[in-house]
Amino acid sequence: MLVIGDEILSGKVQEANVATLAVALRGLGVLLRRVVVVMDDIDTIAREVALLSKTHDWLFTSGGVGPTHDDVTVEAVAKAFGVRVVSSPEMEAMLRAHYKERCTPGHLRMALIPEGASLEVTGDITWPTIRLTNTWLLPGIPEVFRMKLPVVVAHIGAGRAFVSHAAYVRMEESDLKPSLDRVVAQFTDVAVGSYPKWFDPSYKTKVTFDSRDAARARAARDAFVSWLDPALVTLRD
Amino acid sequence: MLVIGDEILSGKVQEANVATLAVALRGLGVLLRRVVVVMDDIDTIAREVALLSKTHDWLFTSGGVGPTHDDVTVEAVAKAFGVRVVSSPEMEAMLRAHYKERCTPGHLRMALIPEGASLEVTGDITWPTIRLTNTWLLPGIPEVFRMKLPVVVAHIGAGRAFVSHAAYVRMEESDLKPSLDRVVAQFTDVAVGSYPKWFDPSYKTKVTFDSRDAARARAARDAFVSWLDPALVTLRD
Repeated sequence: MLVIGDEILSGKVQEANVATLAVALRGLGVLLRRVVVVMDDIDTIAREVALLSKTHDWLFTSGGVGPTHDDVTVEAVAKAFGVRVVSSPEMEAMLRAHYKERCTPGHLRMALIPEGASLEVTGDITWPTIRLTNTWLLPGIPEVFRMKLPVVVAHIGAGRAFVSHAAYVRMEESDLKPSLDRVVAQFTDVAVGSYPKWFDPSYKTKVTFDSRDAARARAARDAFVSWLDPALVTLRD
Repeated sequence: MLVIGDEILSGKVQEANVATLAVALRGLGVLLRRVVVVMDDIDTIAREVALLSKTHDWLFTSGGVGPTHDDVTVEAVAKAFGVRVVSSPEMEAMLRAHYKERCTPGHLRMALIPEGASLEVTGDITWPTIRLTNTWLLPGIPEVFRMKLPVVVAHIGAGRAFVSHAAYVRMEESDLKPSLDRVVAQFTDVAVGSYPKWFDPSYKTKVTFDSRDAARARAARDAFVSWLDPALVTLRD
């Protein structure tokens, strides 16, 4: 994922789309491996898009797709793929139909797409999302980002989702270390996460067991808790 | 900034330290240019630390500094700088004093540091923060991350802080485009940001004017709003 926006890097806006995308991708069995956040600079974005799109199955950008001077994602993605920016007749017609006599050159700037890009829609979500080969251009506004995700999900389709089981333990993380090391060694196909909670009275460490194979995730969790005092453990899925 | 943690990339945890660090750095006049989020993998982290620390004045890592199997930041930073991991006698003494007879090998793992690292403290914050040349190792837990930041601030010292002025406008972003383009062209030393708000009745677009030079930021904001209908604008600093 490439997050584009000075507002994130200046701390004016709390980033919110990474978690949304991560959860949606996990439901598809797709692992989010890397997130990069960059400023609204065409060359920086283009360089990053070229690199990330080459080294990953999918790339999702967030931000910079509006009509103003700091919205440079379309231009940067075009540059990354070595194609021109063109006005999509289909998008232009939709924008004119939507804004009618109020339609300005600013509005029509939103019809610009990298040449060769697809305009992805679903039956429910008819406003297009731009995709150029494996790169999806998503908006930065969290409410709109969430509205667009079903298009991505419909396109990528259902793989095998990740399953996660958790144990909430009233023990310090360092005291759990022997059991953690043991479960990691025994279940090499299960991702074990350990998250201390400093200021919560109900538990001290949350331990998670993730796998595309639900039975293995559960077996790892069950083995782990069998080594602990049951009075100190709460299970949750 | 390098954010380390499977929990962020899986969407289990909403990232919270980027905005905290960004705001603290702006107060020091330091621009956060890039954030990368990676998984708990030593080689990936080491490669990223080597690259980011070489190409930036400062690098801040977040996460992976606890006692468990997925806490690999110290080892990765050591690898990035080509130094060994050693146990700090100073940290070991502090850990033994803190945990007393409860002190385990797991606890003592937190005494491990990259060889040659400094242990940074302030008068108030006496638990050390690890710094290796320009790279600071900060914890992932947001409450603890915030507690450690004053050490960074004290060390980096006060530069000239960024000043930000804002105008909240009850106009659509695309209708503001001519005025935005004009202010960007006239005030090339001021960073102009434009943020549409879709679901807020009180305004439609927030426009920000940022500079290390407070007078220039304010002049840009004042010029911009002078071109708009005053009834549609609310100012805020």
